[in-house]
Amino acid sequence: MKNKNMTEQFINDVGFEGYTFIEGGVCAAKGFKAAGVNAHIKANSQKNDMALIYCDKICNAAALYTQNKVKGAPIVVTKRHLADGRAQAVIVNSGNANTCNSNGIEIAEGACELTAKALDISSENVIVASTGVIGQKLSLEPFEKNIPILKEKLSENGYNDACTAIMTTDTRQKQFAVEFKLGDKVCRLGGMSKGSGMINPNMATMLAFITTDVKISSEMLHSALKQINAITYNMVSVDGDTSTNDMVTLLSSGYADNNEITEFNEDYNIFIYALHAVMMNLAKETARDGEGASKLITCVVKNADTEETAKATALSVVNSPLLKTAVSAADANWGRVMCAIGYADADFDVSRVSVDFASKAGEVRVCENGVGVDFSEDEAYKILSEEEVIIIIDLHSGDNPAVAWGCDLTYDYVKINAEYRS
Amino acid sequence: MKNKNMTEQFINDVGFEGYTFIEGGVCAAKGFKAAGVNAHIKANSQKNDMALIYCDKICNAAALYTQNKVKGAPIVVTKRHLADGRAQAVIVNSGNANTCNSNGIEIAEGACELTAKALDISSENVIVASTGVIGQKLSLEPFEKNIPILKEKLSENGYNDACTAIMTTDTRQKQFAVEFKLGDKVCRLGGMSKGSGMINPNMATMLAFITTDVKISSEMLHSALKQINAITYNMVSVDGDTSTNDMVTLLSSGYADNNEITEFNEDYNIFIYALHAVMMNLAKETARDGEGASKLITCVVKNADTEETAKATALSVVNSPLLKTAVSAADANWGRVMCAIGYADADFDVSRVSVDFASKAGEVRVCENGVGVDFSEDEAYKILSEEEVIIIIDLHSGDNPAVAWGCDLTYDYVKINAEYRS
Repeated sequence: MKNKNMTEQFINDVGFEGYTFIEGGVCAAKGFKAAGVNAHIKANSQKNDMALIYCDKICNAAALYTQNKVKGAPIVVTKRHLADGRAQAVIVNSGNANTCNSNGIEIAEGACELTAKALDISSENVIVASTGVIGQKLSLEPFEKNIPILKEKLSENGYNDACTAIMTTDTRQKQFAVEFKLGDKVCRLGGMSKGSGMINPNMATMLAFITTDVKISSEMLHSALKQINAITYNMVSVDGDTSTNDMVTLLSSGYADNNEITEFNEDYNIFIYALHAVMMNLAKETARDGEGASKLITCVVKNADTEETAKATALSVVNSPLLKTAVSAADANWGRVMCAIGYADADFDVSRVSVDFASKAGEVRVCENGVGVDFSEDEAYKILSEEEVIIIIDLHSGDNPAVAWGCDLTYDYVKINAEYRS
Repeated sequence: MKNKNMTEQFINDVGFEGYTFIEGGVCAAKGFKAAGVNAHIKANSQKNDMALIYCDKICNAAALYTQNKVKGAPIVVTKRHLADGRAQAVIVNSGNANTCNSNGIEIAEGACELTAKALDISSENVIVASTGVIGQKLSLEPFEKNIPILKEKLSENGYNDACTAIMTTDTRQKQFAVEFKLGDKVCRLGGMSKGSGMINPNMATMLAFITTDVKISSEMLHSALKQINAITYNMVSVDGDTSTNDMVTLLSSGYADNNEITEFNEDYNIFIYALHAVMMNLAKETARDGEGASKLITCVVKNADTEETAKATALSVVNSPLLKTAVSAADANWGRVMCAIGYADADFDVSRVSVDFASKAGEVRVCENGVGVDFSEDEAYKILSEEEVIIIIDLHSGDNPAVAWGCDLTYDYVKINAEYRS
């Protein structure tokens, strides 16, 4: 499966029989507990802003990090700690990104040490993450005060508290978990994520923490995360801004007691379907909950000559501010789709392109062979008035598909971001 | 001068003595007349939407076109007509882009033929341009009816009417002209442009028509246009959307009777300074008049290791929706500048970066050596409350500068674009 177009694999062969969505988020997998608390990192905040995830044994672990060259201190420290592919706890705060601070590394390491001390584990096995305002001083005080409290609160039911703690401008929790079987062993995989603005490919550009009890080597864990990230989080865009701080981590406790996955085999394939089910849904919810968004926009590109062309085209469309504003008003301005296709970094023959708008209210073709076709504006308006809008682009030049997710651009995006710091 | 960093040239050696800004826009240069009329291309529009520019002799001509792979029919036709580097008239309409229409080429060619017939010139010497909604049928009727009227109205005072005719969501006219000398000959160069949304580098992504009476070969005209475009229109971004239709054309009548410029010599250098004066101001005004904009943002990048790095960094900053919204609220959220620098396609050492905010209200350093420094929020607020805000980034890693222009992102951008077609 390694060299196939991953999207094609998942579109054509959905294969989710045997996967059941369950409750439990980041605590669904055996061995994991979580907690959240209001550490008052952001003055006047009424919500949780610090979370702890803990496993009672050392896990295999993998992570992906932002591609931004300006990296938050937690990114630097977590990379260092995960060099050996092992981790046992995650300490994460919202309200302050701990980025572009002169003492950022010191604070991030300090948070890990305080966590390690409270849990009696090695500081090298602690993952640290932060999200919030860049360039604002952060002290160790809220960690000193709240990590012991978090430790006391750790519970298999703590997933909601933890999920709330990582939210910034998110309007709702994002967590999913699935149960499935490897051989006769029941396995679980679940996760939570945040991210609402500063969402653009080149990795998640959000925080996501995923846990599983599947027994799998660090190497295969990393491979799975990379493969599935490429067609989920990397295909989400809210505003084209790639954050400095974001990461997705995947921890496996091994408690499911399956035959350890150490190579690309049938069990690996079953595992990545589970990972896809969780990550794809987290990614979609991130787009749907984009800052100020009123609609989820899914762009499906079909029949591109290469996977790169398909992906670049889909992302270009969900990224276009002009298209996003048109969708917010349910205006079938398909010319803006053509325009965004045209400036994608991709090769295609304009005269073969067709475009359809779809939603649960129906489907309408608006462009064929690169030129407009007659369609009912009323019907198109109805279709685009739904909360989930799909733009289907057929490039008619190969057999590679891609799917990207984005959201509309509304007044509220401007409102939310105009005075975010205050 | 060909291989130098052009921005450096123009920053360090401004050299505008001897250039006087004058009235007259596209009619300032000897030999050119213009006219504008309301052809009712867009129903209910109260403004001019069709313009004609005419020179009483065949001009040398050069043009640059959108990089969008979906190209408006007028782009295709104009490219064909300008293959010989000669032109005599420009027919342009707003309200309809004549793009993605099945009969687009036919209409664009038809408009040229009608213009040629009215003026008794060759259709091959007519430039055609359109801007407006994509994928909306356009007929020859408004051209048939209005080109004879435009011909009758042609005048050296017609520049305002023409300038109004090319506006779409523009809130004001954009035209500049300069007078200067080559030897003892008085020369003039002037132009007009439109463009307010769908403005992103990779050429102008706007319509711009520039005329001069300087005697200069088509080849040198093209070279000058390309050089100056690279540091003016290509450094403007309103929303990251690269349009399908935009072009900048440059026509020279030769009436100034200077020694013809046929090589890179001192006269050529004097000429490109004049071209820079006009194009830079048109570009800046386009940014200032970006859809919904309340502020002009100028990003100056200094001391980059290469010109490419300097340009990529400056554009990344003026393109960031998060920074643009912060500036709209005069919020000194400099972390978003660092974030945008970080995801620019450019190499630099984060630990050397400094950032200043400046305007006529003062200048304040907010970041040094890649980390935040203490500054007065009140002072920063005052500085960012001005209508022209400058963000100065010093990369401290070479000696290449670049300047990019953009605007803030406000509620009104969303408002203007949500229902543009209606």
